[in-house]
Amino acid sequence: MPDRADLTRRLADLVVGYGANVQPGQIVGVTTYTGKEELTREIARAAYEHGARWVDVSIHDPLVKRQRLLHAEESTLDYIPPWMIDRLEWLSNERAARISLTGPAIPDALDGIDPGRAGRDLLPYLPTTGEVVNRGTTNWCVAPAPSSGWAALVFPELEPEAALDRLWELIAHVCRLDEDDPAEAWRERAHTLESVAARLTARRFDAIRLRGPGTDVTVGLFPSSTWNAADFTTVDGLRHFPNIPSEEIFTTPDPTRVDGHVTATRPLELYGAVMDGIRVGFERGVATRIDAERGADTLRSLVAKDEGASRLGELALVDGEGRIGPLGTVFYETLLDENAASHVALGSAYDIGVEDESDRGRINTSGVHVDFMIGSPETDVDGVTPDGDAVPLLRGGVWQI
Amino acid sequence: MPDRADLTRRLADLVVGYGANVQPGQIVGVTTYTGKEELTREIARAAYEHGARWVDVSIHDPLVKRQRLLHAEESTLDYIPPWMIDRLEWLSNERAARISLTGPAIPDALDGIDPGRAGRDLLPYLPTTGEVVNRGTTNWCVAPAPSSGWAALVFPELEPEAALDRLWELIAHVCRLDEDDPAEAWRERAHTLESVAARLTARRFDAIRLRGPGTDVTVGLFPSSTWNAADFTTVDGLRHFPNIPSEEIFTTPDPTRVDGHVTATRPLELYGAVMDGIRVGFERGVATRIDAERGADTLRSLVAKDEGASRLGELALVDGEGRIGPLGTVFYETLLDENAASHVALGSAYDIGVEDESDRGRINTSGVHVDFMIGSPETDVDGVTPDGDAVPLLRGGVWQI
Repeated sequence: MPDRADLTRRLADLVVGYGANVQPGQIVGVTTYTGKEELTREIARAAYEHGARWVDVSIHDPLVKRQRLLHAEESTLDYIPPWMIDRLEWLSNERAARISLTGPAIPDALDGIDPGRAGRDLLPYLPTTGEVVNRGTTNWCVAPAPSSGWAALVFPELEPEAALDRLWELIAHVCRLDEDDPAEAWRERAHTLESVAARLTARRFDAIRLRGPGTDVTVGLFPSSTWNAADFTTVDGLRHFPNIPSEEIFTTPDPTRVDGHVTATRPLELYGAVMDGIRVGFERGVATRIDAERGADTLRSLVAKDEGASRLGELALVDGEGRIGPLGTVFYETLLDENAASHVALGSAYDIGVEDESDRGRINTSGVHVDFMIGSPETDVDGVTPDGDAVPLLRGGVWQI
Repeated sequence: MPDRADLTRRLADLVVGYGANVQPGQIVGVTTYTGKEELTREIARAAYEHGARWVDVSIHDPLVKRQRLLHAEESTLDYIPPWMIDRLEWLSNERAARISLTGPAIPDALDGIDPGRAGRDLLPYLPTTGEVVNRGTTNWCVAPAPSSGWAALVFPELEPEAALDRLWELIAHVCRLDEDDPAEAWRERAHTLESVAARLTARRFDAIRLRGPGTDVTVGLFPSSTWNAADFTTVDGLRHFPNIPSEEIFTTPDPTRVDGHVTATRPLELYGAVMDGIRVGFERGVATRIDAERGADTLRSLVAKDEGASRLGELALVDGEGRIGPLGTVFYETLLDENAASHVALGSAYDIGVEDESDRGRINTSGVHVDFMIGSPETDVDGVTPDGDAVPLLRGGVWQI
């Protein structure tokens, strides 16, 4: 039986000390939710122990959001209070650390809500988040916070306490808390992923092709598209690891050169709504067809948010050596599920994924960023050279280069 | 056994519909705390049903604050993030409604914290709150939110569920939720209090003298000091009732003319610290001696916050007809306990308590406002005329004028 209090403390230490890499004197912005109180408090404790000047905790309650979506007038649902945007700018200007806790703590919070309405309120996600990330002014980390509600979603067959114990066991495993020195284990894994990323970048592929059950898509790259692991450095030279866990390498694709169709290999929980069996068709970069067994309207509503929301902002490859894929568990949480399988994201792109200024002006921009998983061990991934030759990259989850 | 869900709904309807009097299209700022989720959600529901444009819920966690007070560097404890002040200004500029929920949900949150440190962090209370109230730009209401933690503090001898039931019964009673039409019952009570206030104002007393066990103090008034019930109107003409419950009439005293000594008749819970057996001596308006059986250091630290924190900003009289005093219950919550007994407040004053511009320039200003209760049915209250004659005002809790 896991010692949940101890794991909570150690996860907080990892997120603050390794992930966000909080420095003495820093302000630390924390975005969290009702149901994640214990980890939030340990994050605050760890941040102050690292010398934080102020830990700015913003707590969001999905059931307050539910009341908005149930009762507020339709025309008000896009409203974002200016202080939220100002707060993010302030964190950027202050060169603050930023920590976000994920995991659906109240999974049924938006049950029965009209998906068209739900898709119009993405708070607390802010349209300027991608822009702030690209500035490289903040050292940030997103990490999972286990909770009873989330445990019941992942393990509906277990009793509540057993489900929460089981979720903590898995989170501890995939966050490498079961290693003697989790931060060191993560540095090693990041090193491996950076090596693959460097080799991929050096090949300067023109496109990447993914083929698997229900998926055959070619994603064009820029001449200077660069592969990276989630191992970032701020403009002030502060190294940080923006996802715990992270098993992916990713790049920024050309948003005008995506053709084919993809089928999601995992369900997607987003802003309280679950989407399953997603199928998307792309023509010259644009998502022209969107279907799903569940939640298609929510996804369509998201894609209609702005022009860039219907184009790709990210392509990520995940090998079979990560700890999430082999579990076979669906976590209903992008941070975990996206690191189980290769994926694409609609919406905003990372500057870091292209090297040249000329390409940087052509990357996708949007107020949303929605990852969905299209890979599995059955997915063959090829690099396509400028001459049109296909070079095997992943077969059965194993790197071929 | 009280139907807590039903009472939560009805209390929210009263706070939104009668207290803050939320109007269609308004923004509604809500300040709330961990442990008050149910009432917060019902407030959001009621506000949106009244046509709110956006309900801006700010949730604070006393146990996150505990981590700051335990671990943050001493010199950082006065820091207030600018977005919090900007948010309050925005609410003022937007002519928003403001709702705050009170009651110590996690009463032991600050146990063992150095009082000197605790007194330096008054968040989420902002030093500019008094100023914004005085502008009359926002229609606001403070109301109690029963919780398990609070119930255990008030009824330590009861089982948790029984304690929460009992607290809800008392809160429902003192909030007049047991009336057929609680809002109408409150309007009647406000009318009675306004009548007494008008008679007191008309007498233009030079001072008020309170005498009871451990208390003999004379509080000087301004020539234009005005008595009011908690029945406010914004600069835009929007009537609202800023306290639920409210049994007091109050005025703004002359901060340079307070002499004598007072002994608190109830303990005081403030920012997580409990102060009991408070005794304060005043000379020419200034609190020169501060003692307490418990929490003296916290109170001294508060009084040292700024120059106005050691002078009075409010004098309030409570008769024996209110519903709180007769219960004999100590709620460890100023909103309730201050309405059980006559009280004074150190710190910022209400503009509304003086009529003339010349007096308005002389009222007390401070970044704090701390009420403490000095009255009881044994307290004799007299009005002192400009000629020095004493006129009985309260005897045994009954108005004499």
